[in-house]
Amino acid sequence: MAEKQIKNRVCIVGSGNWGSAIAKIVGKNAARLPNFEDRVTMWVYEEMIDGKKLTEIINETHENVKYLPGHKLPPNVVAVPDIVEAAKDADLLIFVVPHQFVRTICSTLLGKIKPTAAALSLIKGFDIAEGGGIDLISHIITRCLKIPCAVLMGANIASEVAEEKFCETTIGCRDVMLAPMMRDIIQTEYFRVVVVDDEDAVEICGALKNIVAVGAGFVDGLGFGDNTKAAVIRLGLMEMIKFVDVFYPGSKLSTFFESCGVADLITTCYGGRNRRVAEAFVKTGRSIKELEDEMLNGQKLQGPITAEEVNHMLANKNMENKFPLFTAVFRICRGELKPGDFIDCIRSHPEHITLNRVKTPLIVCKTLLIELKLP
Amino acid sequence: MAEKQIKNRVCIVGSGNWGSAIAKIVGKNAARLPNFEDRVTMWVYEEMIDGKKLTEIINETHENVKYLPGHKLPPNVVAVPDIVEAAKDADLLIFVVPHQFVRTICSTLLGKIKPTAAALSLIKGFDIAEGGGIDLISHIITRCLKIPCAVLMGANIASEVAEEKFCETTIGCRDVMLAPMMRDIIQTEYFRVVVVDDEDAVEICGALKNIVAVGAGFVDGLGFGDNTKAAVIRLGLMEMIKFVDVFYPGSKLSTFFESCGVADLITTCYGGRNRRVAEAFVKTGRSIKELEDEMLNGQKLQGPITAEEVNHMLANKNMENKFPLFTAVFRICRGELKPGDFIDCIRSHPEHITLNRVKTPLIVCKTLLIELKLP
Repeated sequence: MAEKQIKNRVCIVGSGNWGSAIAKIVGKNAARLPNFEDRVTMWVYEEMIDGKKLTEIINETHENVKYLPGHKLPPNVVAVPDIVEAAKDADLLIFVVPHQFVRTICSTLLGKIKPTAAALSLIKGFDIAEGGGIDLISHIITRCLKIPCAVLMGANIASEVAEEKFCETTIGCRDVMLAPMMRDIIQTEYFRVVVVDDEDAVEICGALKNIVAVGAGFVDGLGFGDNTKAAVIRLGLMEMIKFVDVFYPGSKLSTFFESCGVADLITTCYGGRNRRVAEAFVKTGRSIKELEDEMLNGQKLQGPITAEEVNHMLANKNMENKFPLFTAVFRICRGELKPGDFIDCIRSHPEHITLNRVKTPLIVCKTLLIELKLP
Repeated sequence: MAEKQIKNRVCIVGSGNWGSAIAKIVGKNAARLPNFEDRVTMWVYEEMIDGKKLTEIINETHENVKYLPGHKLPPNVVAVPDIVEAAKDADLLIFVVPHQFVRTICSTLLGKIKPTAAALSLIKGFDIAEGGGIDLISHIITRCLKIPCAVLMGANIASEVAEEKFCETTIGCRDVMLAPMMRDIIQTEYFRVVVVDDEDAVEICGALKNIVAVGAGFVDGLGFGDNTKAAVIRLGLMEMIKFVDVFYPGSKLSTFFESCGVADLITTCYGGRNRRVAEAFVKTGRSIKELEDEMLNGQKLQGPITAEEVNHMLANKNMENKFPLFTAVFRICRGELKPGDFIDCIRSHPEHITLNRVKTPLIVCKTLLIELKLP
């Protein structure tokens, strides 16, 4: 990684709410750890704030006043408005931008970064592949920049991470040589990291959970209680597992027990904007688009988009009926079904239909038998 | 099961909040299904309500005015004050009483029930075994009455079930001949049943979740957010799995994905009295005992009791440090640690310590690899 010198240089590509929260952690760790260069660059898309450049404000006050006000960044985090300038010497590029900017950013960086660099993507959501279906952001980064790309996902609401409230996260990193560096630069006393090698499943969890959260929002909007919500979360989890099983063979069931799986799903289905907007969608009867304009300043809601991309893949394989929750969320967001139809769509879920009315075990491990009965 | 006739008779042993909610379901199913006798007996511990017997009120008004007011029971559910009278002809005995009454009830019923009868236990919590450690309620029923005993657990807050809000449940039933009957008498359009054969793990989930819910209540009381709570739920789930792995070998990982596992855990950690009292414990600084008296009319809170029983087993095996969350809940409830110490106890959880900083897979199944890395 670190050529002659043993000090790794880190660049954070992005400076929004989550990017700034992670910059706080990365900056402190870089200053503390002997194998990292103190100076961390943070690419900031230049904006004018009250007549002054955002990068200048950050470098003078050590606060991202626009996206993470009220939190000081370590002084060794340096805001840089030119992305090539920020990234060119980095051994580790931490990508944390909205996913629609990834391809452009990669084109800009191609040939301008160290060939030995590695990437870590914190970006949630899928991209649309040529010919339809989904493309993982980490795959795009690897393909475009020809460098390995790990991912970080977990139950990590940015504001709470910035407040240093205890939580966990998951890094998916296939390369065991890179894993220790990834972990060391991210882990703190309050931000606990587990590294797994199941990269794709980690990233997919981070996108699919938003579909489930839309369903959880419907349930809240319809006035159902905790039992129903727990059922939706569980059935959503089963469809997430099934989706990975069908489209990403070779992934691991255990990944869904990590922070990126069950924990992030829970957080997103109780907090989170997808749940919130979906609840309003049911209660107000207005369209997702109208609510995005009103509640999110026009930003797009991830869940409905992901539901559409996923539906494209399911429809292609004629598997919509095996994913009734994902399919219902998609159809309700498009107005093809009413929110009130949601429960009927999952009432006879494949999960509830089992041979001889008893699920049977498939496999044995350690003293714990592992049964995996997918819908 | 049903000797000469093919109609199974059902007796519900218990008539509290949960017992009455399940009586609503069982009564309707018994009346509807050809292989069940319409008449369902419900043993009611006789009480006087405004000068009138509770059994008489129930049989006249078809409402359990004390424990499930506002909901009509089907008229074919007949309240019976004598437990032997209620149970003697039953092919299926559904136990739903506080767990401390089980042994006495079984002694009373011994030799008075059909030898071919089967039991289904809805009772949450453990009993203390002779010589310490835990005894499962279903094992006590089987041992005392010499009949098989399945269990039913899930994300099933009684009041919401009574309101017929959609939810799921899990039946753990080892006997494939009994499973269809168990399922048919319980399942409705709004109460979806999955039967698994992993009886013990289903029952253990129903008890251990309350320890985790106490931890979740601490987190709420301490003012942490959704990230921290999700981490506590996930780490609690991992300790539940580990506990079953150590003490009930031969159980199945998949059971934790059922309603009795992750779903019930979520419901209990967001709603539920254990969470609520634990939050008050932190905020008021009063003892669990005082809060039980004040908030639960003197009823005992399940989580702290279960934490103590479990701690006894862990201490015996010198394994407390492998279960830091369970152990911290136990010690905080006893006043040996302060609630504020809770996060420190789980900060370096065995879950966060992995060989070479990457978890490694152990096993392969279908296209999905199954990795089970226990703390």
